[in-house]
Amino acid sequence: MTPNPREAIGRRKTELDTPCLLIDLDRLDENLQKMQGRVKAAGKALRPHAKTHKCSTLAKMQIANGAIGTCAAKIAEAEALVTAGISGVLLTGPVAGRTKADRLVALLERAPFLIAVVDDPAGIELLEARLAAAGRRLDVLLDLDVGQHRTGVPPARAAALAETILACPHLRLRGVQAYAGHLQHIPRYADRKLASREALRQAAAVFRELRERASSCDIFSGSGTGTARIDLAIPELTELQAGSYALMDAEYLAIESADGSEEADYTPALTLLTTVVSGPHGRQVTVDAGLKAIYRDGGKPRVIHPDYRRLQYEWFGDEYGRLVAPDRACLLPAPGTVLELIVSHCDPTVNLFDQFLVTRAERVIDVWPIDLRGRCQ
Amino acid sequence: MTPNPREAIGRRKTELDTPCLLIDLDRLDENLQKMQGRVKAAGKALRPHAKTHKCSTLAKMQIANGAIGTCAAKIAEAEALVTAGISGVLLTGPVAGRTKADRLVALLERAPFLIAVVDDPAGIELLEARLAAAGRRLDVLLDLDVGQHRTGVPPARAAALAETILACPHLRLRGVQAYAGHLQHIPRYADRKLASREALRQAAAVFRELRERASSCDIFSGSGTGTARIDLAIPELTELQAGSYALMDAEYLAIESADGSEEADYTPALTLLTTVVSGPHGRQVTVDAGLKAIYRDGGKPRVIHPDYRRLQYEWFGDEYGRLVAPDRACLLPAPGTVLELIVSHCDPTVNLFDQFLVTRAERVIDVWPIDLRGRCQ
Repeated sequence: MTPNPREAIGRRKTELDTPCLLIDLDRLDENLQKMQGRVKAAGKALRPHAKTHKCSTLAKMQIANGAIGTCAAKIAEAEALVTAGISGVLLTGPVAGRTKADRLVALLERAPFLIAVVDDPAGIELLEARLAAAGRRLDVLLDLDVGQHRTGVPPARAAALAETILACPHLRLRGVQAYAGHLQHIPRYADRKLASREALRQAAAVFRELRERASSCDIFSGSGTGTARIDLAIPELTELQAGSYALMDAEYLAIESADGSEEADYTPALTLLTTVVSGPHGRQVTVDAGLKAIYRDGGKPRVIHPDYRRLQYEWFGDEYGRLVAPDRACLLPAPGTVLELIVSHCDPTVNLFDQFLVTRAERVIDVWPIDLRGRCQ
Repeated sequence: MTPNPREAIGRRKTELDTPCLLIDLDRLDENLQKMQGRVKAAGKALRPHAKTHKCSTLAKMQIANGAIGTCAAKIAEAEALVTAGISGVLLTGPVAGRTKADRLVALLERAPFLIAVVDDPAGIELLEARLAAAGRRLDVLLDLDVGQHRTGVPPARAAALAETILACPHLRLRGVQAYAGHLQHIPRYADRKLASREALRQAAAVFRELRERASSCDIFSGSGTGTARIDLAIPELTELQAGSYALMDAEYLAIESADGSEEADYTPALTLLTTVVSGPHGRQVTVDAGLKAIYRDGGKPRVIHPDYRRLQYEWFGDEYGRLVAPDRACLLPAPGTVLELIVSHCDPTVNLFDQFLVTRAERVIDVWPIDLRGRCQ
């Protein structure tokens, strides 16, 4: 039969079947406490994004550490979080179309404190009609476009959209969302700081106006792992949505941290195990993790084995990767060798797996279902 | 509650929640019959690769159409196929390491006719030892590297490896596998033909020698959707592993077909539905299918709506894509609009979903679980 993932509990990393995703629990704990401590010291709240880890067990740990709830990108993610017993869910993507509006209204029955975002008059009208039909009310944030041009309205159109929301008896305007996704990976800290300050300055002005207009406005939600330390200094911001800090990845490790050092603010807690399955083929060997195990996005994975860290990972089809030796001095591992990698972009890679194997001191101590996996609707 | 996927049965495409994957059953049928007919006419067998569709229901349709079995890339895929009652499984990737060898031997208990491939003396020794301990025998193909340098041994090393296999009492050498994955997407047909002929010519020579050496050698397995028509002309080839022909994708649609026309040999049976969720933002709108719904690999997805086919899809983060108008004459769809796309590279995109919604005449008539999804071990 197909092995039960929980059979891995008690095993050493090198005895595990691959590819698989590992979480180092001590590193995760450290990351969670570090972010929560910083956010608390700044007098803000943390509502971490679950789209990065897709795991309600991890979301509950974040809440146990002091987070006020969890962000979800899609309704299907929010449904899974609510099913797991998590409240304080903020749905960060606008819903459009009747099917989605009905699914959101149906979820409200189980999650009365759900918060959604809106950015379109027609969408607001549809939502109001469906809420009225169901006899329900919904808290919403006005989604602001602060330069990414993905969702939200530009600050100049915020006042008019706010009036549309305020005219809907089944919607309650709770504030604004402003996520500067396009700024999170700016390599130099000083450049990132300048850009994020400018983007959120406009959002802060909108938030101040809305607070004057409606007393129900008490949330200004935004930020990410790349700009979290920068954005904590913005007085109006009430809560942070950062998510990747928990697991980290090669992409976020590559940006300069606040103190200008090479060292990242957070340590990689997520790794992937892969096995050499063929080779050597010239100066390379083939491993069992390809496109379907390490999502091709956000730079290259890194090998963290002391003898093999100079090997360069390259995707090699759906099922395989190759580890290429940059020169003849670099040793190649034999078939059967198990190697540990830091993945490139954690979010879409996590979404390829059904569970995390949680480790401490090189052994698996728990298995956490990635219960939001595949929930892209 | 989270909607049950089978609730989609009976709905029109435009009423479906998105993102979701659709299969047009008539087109799929046509593709399956066309490939099977060509293979049969050439006196060969078809053992289509399940790694592209990850669906045992579809694999069974292929077998009902005349296929002799199914290829699997990983043991975890083979396990799911066997669980679904499929026999004639060929595992196309070599196993390495004790964990994998044990998992393969355990599967033999349920699938005595499983065929595996080998490419490494140490791997063969390990497999022989584990088989001997379990009192089981295994049919194997010698995996040949015909230029991709991913798995397999070069033809020059085949004779020595064959002797290693033949010295193992628990292994039976059934022939060779030679997959020219690096040639499948060569754009011009004439170039692809030249390259595939040369690659498989070497493999055919090895196969002829092995047949002389051991009467158990009766399988020469290889080919893919890009070179299938070319490879059918190779007398020694006994079976084809092509997989993508069933669903097709933008990547395979982009290569020149056998008659030199723009029209591909097979028609796209797989599409993805996405909804516009925000916009317009300048000359673009935002849709709800991003990295986690359309794998970023193998070119760009194509919009197939008559009014919007000139819109260019671009990935826009984990959860979103954008559709960009190339000029001012190109209309932008309003939020809530549902659009159908041909995905770029079918294999890793299928692996992001849990089911296909099967359609005929614009309505969903069935839901097929993607039961091999995520089985990358």
